[in-house]
Amino acid sequence: MSTAADMAPELEVGRWFNTPTPITLAGLRGRVVALHTFQMLCPGCISHGIPQATRLRKMFAQKDVAVIGLHTVFEHHSVMTEEALAAFIHEYRLDFPIGVDIPGTNNPVPRTMQKYALRGTPSLVLIDRSGRLRLSHFGQIEDMQLGAVIGQLLAEPGETQSAPADSALSDAGSGRCEVGANGKRTG
Amino acid sequence: MSTAADMAPELEVGRWFNTPTPITLAGLRGRVVALHTFQMLCPGCISHGIPQATRLRKMFAQKDVAVIGLHTVFEHHSVMTEEALAAFIHEYRLDFPIGVDIPGTNNPVPRTMQKYALRGTPSLVLIDRSGRLRLSHFGQIEDMQLGAVIGQLLAEPGETQSAPADSALSDAGSGRCEVGANGKRTG
Amino acid sequence: MSTAADMAPELEVGRWFNTPTPITLAGLRGRVVALHTFQMLCPGCISHGIPQATRLRKMFAQKDVAVIGLHTVFEHHSVMTEEALAAFIHEYRLDFPIGVDIPGTNNPVPRTMQKYALRGTPSLVLIDRSGRLRLSHFGQIEDMQLGAVIGQLLAEPGETQSAPADSALSDAGSGRCEVGANGKRTG
Amino acid sequence: MSTAADMAPELEVGRWFNTPTPITLAGLRGRVVALHTFQMLCPGCISHGIPQATRLRKMFAQKDVAVIGLHTVFEHHSVMTEEALAAFIHEYRLDFPIGVDIPGTNNPVPRTMQKYALRGTPSLVLIDRSGRLRLSHFGQIEDMQLGAVIGQLLAEPGETQSAPADSALSDAGSGRCEVGANGKRTG
Repeated sequence: MSTAADMAPELEVGRWFNTPTPITLAGLRGRVVALHTFQMLCPGCISHGIPQATRLRKMFAQKDVAVIGLHTVFEHHSVMTEEALAAFIHEYRLDFPIGVDIPGTNNPVPRTMQKYALRGTPSLVLIDRSGRLRLSHFGQIEDMQLGAVIGQLLAEPGETQSAPADSALSDAGSGRCEVGANGKRTG
Repeated sequence: MSTAADMAPELEVGRWFNTPTPITLAGLRGRVVALHTFQMLCPGCISHGIPQATRLRKMFAQKDVAVIGLHTVFEHHSVMTEEALAAFIHEYRLDFPIGVDIPGTNNPVPRTMQKYALRGTPSLVLIDRSGRLRLSHFGQIEDMQLGAVIGQLLAEPGETQSAPADSALSDAGSGRCEVGANGKRTG
Repeated sequence: MSTAADMAPELEVGRWFNTPTPITLAGLRGRVVALHTFQMLCPGCISHGIPQATRLRKMFAQKDVAVIGLHTVFEHHSVMTEEALAAFIHEYRLDFPIGVDIPGTNNPVPRTMQKYALRGTPSLVLIDRSGRLRLSHFGQIEDMQLGAVIGQLLAEPGETQSAPADSALSDAGSGRCEVGANGKRTG
Repeated sequence: MSTAADMAPELEVGRWFNTPTPITLAGLRGRVVALHTFQMLCPGCISHGIPQATRLRKMFAQKDVAVIGLHTVFEHHSVMTEEALAAFIHEYRLDFPIGVDIPGTNNPVPRTMQKYALRGTPSLVLIDRSGRLRLSHFGQIEDMQLGAVIGQLLAEPGETQSAPADSALSDAGSGRCEVGANGKRTG
């Protein structure tokens, strides 16, 4: 994985939800950043992107991976308002920070979306511990692949480095077959 | 992630499927090894483990990650025979190498399973590029977590090192919303 | 299944989408009516109710079963507007008729929702060929159960009666095992 | 739905599991019979057919719908033995009656499978309250469609007639939005 990547441009956010203070990429140095860009009326965002962002938030320690949502409205502007987004966040019980991308000037595409040249929603952006843009993916990406890229970014040196403890592994094993104490199966 | 792990014990396999020559862990040095242990009549193996092993095989380049199946029969020995396994492999169209763990002596648990002290099936074992045992997980493990651990192992130096190309990312984006050339949405 | 049920109260709809002319229950006599009530920002409606309504529409002939959506806004009124619903219908590519329940007077619950005493969204209402209310279900209902109740209503005499042709059965059989011409398996 | 169907031929079963006494179609008159034919090494049977048969068993009262499994081995005869099937039934915790179709003479296809001219596995056969063959479907069939056909058969007069009580409806509604006592939403 090349490390000659460009620095990720700073976010341009007009309003934040789920965070007491505004978030900047500069302030997240040392952590891997998973930026999930979406629109609340985009079906692929609702069925795939938002649930994946929620899994990311749950899977990785926040000191290692910062999961950020960005509402990048480039269509239906009159109904995907901040007020509508607030209702959406409430109904879907989202608890990670979500910013509203600042509308473009003479351009339906908002500013951060323009700077990152995103093709649409959902798009997933990964930024490494040093603030470099490492992945920008439009459409669906499988959990296994996303996990693999994040795992590699976590392994790279940064200002601080840590890794998910093995103990974080889910152990809820329905359907598994267990060896008993005497070699016979139990349960 | 600790690197003080023990060396993974060598496999004890009586018969191999889907490989022209027997496989040894020693022969896989330099690659990350994902060892999926299963029984053909274990429901959790069929619904979760085998499909995940198939995804692993498809997701990672074989020069980076070796996906190996191991049939660790510790119950119903009389029906989970090599002949039955051959039919199973054929019906499920499995194409990665699968070994048959050598039956135990005075013990229903087969030999490799004993050496790894596996608790049952499915169990997933990860071995790093240097042959050290890094993960042994009984039951289900989520794709995102598994990907993250493999990503970290891939990032560690070994005899050879490479990483999944970004171009390997799936781009099949149903449900996504795209910005048109003029900022208007297409399709 | 009792047939002493009350007549279903008429819909009170302020605006219709996906139909050239307003729809009344009276005009649907002779057909079974599946009324799917939802809110566009209700997660259970998006993940369960709307996809199920779409399957209903695809599964049954329109001359037998009329699938109708009803947007019953009882919260977040300022953002779940008709304009927002129009964008929602467009983005989700919904093609069955959808009405907007008329807002209540001094009551956040809209009029049809009040008349049917619905507890929330999603709610599924089934009306028989004679216009009687036969099922009102709040929350998720399994496809098999829903199909069974509709099948029973279809079998009841009405002004007209017909049934789904066996040829409507999906025959897309991945994973199936076929006997060959000579008794040997093919493909 | 035509009622001029032929009588379903009697089952030819060599051994039964999960029933104290042998089962005959003649003995099931008055009930709708759902006959699920499968092979334990058929992937489509494991992923689709068996789980659907289990849902059928759970959804309908046994006095209305009899769910019967039939192991119709037409390939890999030497490993899909009665002993292997017993282990399979135990591992998958199947609790509905399952019969073993009697092997064919000079024919790999077993006898009942021949009489019904089934094309392979999984195949689902529906028999009405009067013992007539009403549906024979090879491959996957959607729950909604299957429910609809069974609902129609249940509505037909037979020696006895009953229907699933509305109270059988699942009410486990995660993700639903509820109106509070005063019209405000709760939960």
